[in-house]
Amino acid sequence: MDGTESSSSHIRYCLTISYDGTQYAGWQWQLNANTIQLNVESAIEKVFQIPLRIHGCSRTDTGVHALGMMAHFDIPLKMDGSIPIPPQKLPLALNRFLPLDIRITHASIKPSDFHARFSAWGKQYRYFIWNHPHHNPLMRSTTWHFPQSLDIRAMRLAGRDFIGTMDFRSFANLHAYPVENTIRTVFRCSIRQSGPLLTFIIEGDGFLYKMCRGMVGTLVQIGIGKFPISAVRSMLAEKNRIAAGQTAPAHGLTLWKVFYDH
Amino acid sequence: MDGTESSSSHIRYCLTISYDGTQYAGWQWQLNANTIQLNVESAIEKVFQIPLRIHGCSRTDTGVHALGMMAHFDIPLKMDGSIPIPPQKLPLALNRFLPLDIRITHASIKPSDFHARFSAWGKQYRYFIWNHPHHNPLMRSTTWHFPQSLDIRAMRLAGRDFIGTMDFRSFANLHAYPVENTIRTVFRCSIRQSGPLLTFIIEGDGFLYKMCRGMVGTLVQIGIGKFPISAVRSMLAEKNRIAAGQTAPAHGLTLWKVFYDH
Repeated sequence: MDGTESSSSHIRYCLTISYDGTQYAGWQWQLNANTIQLNVESAIEKVFQIPLRIHGCSRTDTGVHALGMMAHFDIPLKMDGSIPIPPQKLPLALNRFLPLDIRITHASIKPSDFHARFSAWGKQYRYFIWNHPHHNPLMRSTTWHFPQSLDIRAMRLAGRDFIGTMDFRSFANLHAYPVENTIRTVFRCSIRQSGPLLTFIIEGDGFLYKMCRGMVGTLVQIGIGKFPISAVRSMLAEKNRIAAGQTAPAHGLTLWKVFYDH
Repeated sequence: MDGTESSSSHIRYCLTISYDGTQYAGWQWQLNANTIQLNVESAIEKVFQIPLRIHGCSRTDTGVHALGMMAHFDIPLKMDGSIPIPPQKLPLALNRFLPLDIRITHASIKPSDFHARFSAWGKQYRYFIWNHPHHNPLMRSTTWHFPQSLDIRAMRLAGRDFIGTMDFRSFANLHAYPVENTIRTVFRCSIRQSGPLLTFIIEGDGFLYKMCRGMVGTLVQIGIGKFPISAVRSMLAEKNRIAAGQTAPAHGLTLWKVFYDH
């Protein structure tokens, strides 16, 4: 099975997964690398005694975190047609076999046409910056320390230009993951400020490789006056990666939640 | 000098220190233990080339964190009477010699009668609980994971009984640090709820050893119905450690800020 549809002899589970990505080579399974997917699949194998591949809603890069990563997988029904493990008992069962920096926080049963990636109509990422001359040790693994002062008003104005359905080619690393269609819709790009903590909330129907981090890095460069507020618009128009600003570091980014219809 | 008053040939610096206490045996200098005080003193020695003792506003236990720990120390003035290092340059100079889980976030010059401990009229501690069946890996070093559901209303009502000037003997570990006077004034004990995150904000003029953690542990036991709401009042009246509830774990506690007059 390629994970797009389960047979009637199988049950489709969907997991919500939180992780601190600091120690991992990202979400996606890779040869000889310690990834989140590898750890979750290994826990599932221990619980169900079946080796399998799970289907995540998206990749996250090395060092990126998640509060609400979603993934699905299929398990054969028991001989009598019953569910092997009720979903409400699954998180506890899996967490026994997972390291403390990966937690299954919720599990549910989904119809056979549900797909963690293809059924999602949007995702929310949050990017955290500690904007103070000295870092906050209590948030050092989840925030980017940026000591220079930032013009938040300019960044908010520039951020509005990311909203819409556009070609985001300039904000993607297409060398690593070539894709044909680089049109994406961003429906939110806002910045919350609470003391030195800046929270970028970015929502869209999909994101190209390193797109979120390119957006944040560019806004920060606007915040220090390296680029004018109009830079986002002109960078998008160029449709060339060289046009955009820097890529913000991975450890400030968290996949916050994924949107599905019920 | 015992740190209570600096001579006119010295300058008194005061530091604001943030730390992730996970890897440390608390604040206080101890023989053969890696403490925060030891690390900060060692950085000061490297910067000023003078070995000395610093004076903290309070002890924090093994595993307890701080956002705004305060400490002072005296450094001789230069031959021409000038200040060896301007305070605004001191955090960066010290942070070069500190591990990433300890940061000096601010430094100032204080009058010779200022004392980090004796000049403080109050302190604010925050205690964080992740109240959800499964822990949040992104907050696992700073929150106590408590999976059972809690009656927050009961806890808030009971928490009010901690406010006032009273003998807190029942909520202190006096075996470890005997003190004569166990009367303290608590002026705030509130609980904020934001999804699964509970934040206890506790302010007082001073705290006995493990007092904050005893207060939180007791409120949690009231929250699961182990004790009635009236328990705080009766425990305080007994003036005996055996009377009070459990001690909440250290890693949920952060010394948030210290109050001084200007």
